[in-house]
Amino acid sequence: MKNTEKVKLAVIGLGSRGGWLVDQFLTMDNVFVSALSDVYEDRVENCAARVEKACGEKPFCTTDYREIIGRNVCDAVLVCTGWEDHVKIALDMMEAHIPVGLEVGGAYSVADCFRLVETWERTKTPLMFCENCCYDRYELMCLNMARLGLFGEIVHAEGGYMHDLRTEILFGRENRHYRLENYKHRNCDNYPTHNFGPIATILGINRGNRMVSLTSTASKAAGLNDYARLHENVDPALRDYPFAQGDIVVTNIKCADGATVTLTLDTTLPRPYSRGFTIRGTRGMYQEDGNYVYLDTDFTEADHWNWKIHWNNAEEYLKKYEHPIWRRYLEDGVRGGHGGIDFLVYDDFFERVKDGKPMTLDVYDAAAFMCITPLTEQSIRNNSAPVEVPDFTGGAWETNDGSSRFV
Amino acid sequence: MKNTEKVKLAVIGLGSRGGWLVDQFLTMDNVFVSALSDVYEDRVENCAARVEKACGEKPFCTTDYREIIGRNVCDAVLVCTGWEDHVKIALDMMEAHIPVGLEVGGAYSVADCFRLVETWERTKTPLMFCENCCYDRYELMCLNMARLGLFGEIVHAEGGYMHDLRTEILFGRENRHYRLENYKHRNCDNYPTHNFGPIATILGINRGNRMVSLTSTASKAAGLNDYARLHENVDPALRDYPFAQGDIVVTNIKCADGATVTLTLDTTLPRPYSRGFTIRGTRGMYQEDGNYVYLDTDFTEADHWNWKIHWNNAEEYLKKYEHPIWRRYLEDGVRGGHGGIDFLVYDDFFERVKDGKPMTLDVYDAAAFMCITPLTEQSIRNNSAPVEVPDFTGGAWETNDGSSRFV
Repeated sequence: MKNTEKVKLAVIGLGSRGGWLVDQFLTMDNVFVSALSDVYEDRVENCAARVEKACGEKPFCTTDYREIIGRNVCDAVLVCTGWEDHVKIALDMMEAHIPVGLEVGGAYSVADCFRLVETWERTKTPLMFCENCCYDRYELMCLNMARLGLFGEIVHAEGGYMHDLRTEILFGRENRHYRLENYKHRNCDNYPTHNFGPIATILGINRGNRMVSLTSTASKAAGLNDYARLHENVDPALRDYPFAQGDIVVTNIKCADGATVTLTLDTTLPRPYSRGFTIRGTRGMYQEDGNYVYLDTDFTEADHWNWKIHWNNAEEYLKKYEHPIWRRYLEDGVRGGHGGIDFLVYDDFFERVKDGKPMTLDVYDAAAFMCITPLTEQSIRNNSAPVEVPDFTGGAWETNDGSSRFV
Repeated sequence: MKNTEKVKLAVIGLGSRGGWLVDQFLTMDNVFVSALSDVYEDRVENCAARVEKACGEKPFCTTDYREIIGRNVCDAVLVCTGWEDHVKIALDMMEAHIPVGLEVGGAYSVADCFRLVETWERTKTPLMFCENCCYDRYELMCLNMARLGLFGEIVHAEGGYMHDLRTEILFGRENRHYRLENYKHRNCDNYPTHNFGPIATILGINRGNRMVSLTSTASKAAGLNDYARLHENVDPALRDYPFAQGDIVVTNIKCADGATVTLTLDTTLPRPYSRGFTIRGTRGMYQEDGNYVYLDTDFTEADHWNWKIHWNNAEEYLKKYEHPIWRRYLEDGVRGGHGGIDFLVYDDFFERVKDGKPMTLDVYDAAAFMCITPLTEQSIRNNSAPVEVPDFTGGAWETNDGSSRFV
């Protein structure tokens, strides 16, 4: 397609996330929502009405996403259905040579991750893993600082999806939300990519580094039951439902270069939101909790004891180390949801669809990030036994260069 | 001994910690430093001079701790040598029926932990594990809040010994400090008790609950080498020394009641000090990083997103939930080092030596806390494989009641 044209986009999955994104896309210059699909007709109609009102043109509408194929109604597709349909839809679209933007979520099997990679290698249909958190401001500042060597050698990183979702999960039936069924039947880190994505870019996963093995440990499941018992408006059947999903899942990942990553899923107990993003090197660190940078060059041992000295100082470091992507973004004007990161990830995706350039977060990233879910499930099921992490790149991680990404 | 008498105490090990404690004891009413021992004669002489100056009486002095036995020079002994001698000295003293205060540190083998327990069960010589952090103010506030049910059902806890010790370790030879050799040759969570102790009291370890298994993962060792290379005053032989100890060790523990504990050792990279103490329940939480309490009753979902609402609010909760031990302590006047906790733990030890009452942190606690070190070593050596945690109580944990401790 011509670079001047807008990407004609089919959006599949119009729940809370998909519907929100459609509205976002209506404000963007390089995309045009040309098709909509959801298994629920009311969702399709609602979104179609909003698109028509904004653009004057009614998108192609269907409750069967396969009808999008072969009709020439789009240049690319965005998959934001429930997690369980992500891979199936992405594979169908790649087979049909329709470039795929894949919203985030974990996989249901390692085999599914291999299917994504195999289908890309055979069809060369691009797939972008739309992990918005890789574009977040402090995460990119840390990538910039890491590339400048300010943290020294990176040794360890931490992250988590730490978000109290008790009401979202427990009212899942009413809200037609997919999380409820997952919490009933699975025990794993079901949502690792928001926290692992930015860590992976800094550690060079698939580009000079890779995950080698992991262990995962889940606490008992007590949070949802207790909440259901205390709140009369929650489905009484959930008060004593034997939820499979532990409240806290902690996963330790070992990487080929000797660095380690600790990931936490923490979604069914009371807490404030955090992704717990933390980068540790031989010369410095960043921690999201408290939003602070601590470099050997800026502090002395005497400062160890007074957390008020460094607490919330990261804004100061933005002045010097703001990532170029955000420097430009701030000049152009920050737009859209989630602090502007949805705009950044989708703007990147649409530009790459237009230019035919390699995706910033490609199918190998999708496979690596998403496989954490079934691997943690396997480790938890086996009393936290270590599990090997497959190399989806077939050895290419050793020579792949990541320095041209996120520049 | 009579309750009105002072405990005559032999202090074995007069390095930085032992020397500091001797000075502390000189200010306390219920103890008299009657004997001193260290393998280094200069340390003994220095401490003896300070004791004599303060009390007018020279303590019994020796470089061979075994000379303390059979001489009737003390009512109790405190062991604060290097970690590697803790158990050997404690066993010798228990065999000689001299009550033992044991300073903290991890064990070198699970067998050593069993030896402590076996020797107590045979000799009935009391041993107190002098874990000062179990007496810290916010830790005890959380114990109080947990007992009041404010956190709901406790599901997960976290803690760490997160203390940048690079200079202490690297100048270990000059300072005759035992850590250097440990970092050269061992890879484990070598110092778990400061963080695990307060968690254990809240989770009821050995008293209704116990650890069942753990996994442990160590990052590469890069921090000490990098520091040594950058600092000319560090022994050049350490610049490329292949340190065994990973910079970050993360351990996940599963408990009999389904709760989990995540412990972190983090001592050779730049960072501010923290013990990362965190308690998570179905109705609320406390987190040391940010020093905040977050209860369902006090916050709404809308508050999730603004960390400034709850940040550093724990002082407010002290007004209502200050632990009785600290309430009394504040009335009497907080004394001594480390924010007053050294006074509390040793005052407790001395009073129990005098009264013959059971130790607050007994030999089973010592064994449980200390065994984490060799078990993590074993897991790390076996690619993070899960390791069973022994039950040192022989099944008594099921019926032991912890409600009379820390009251």
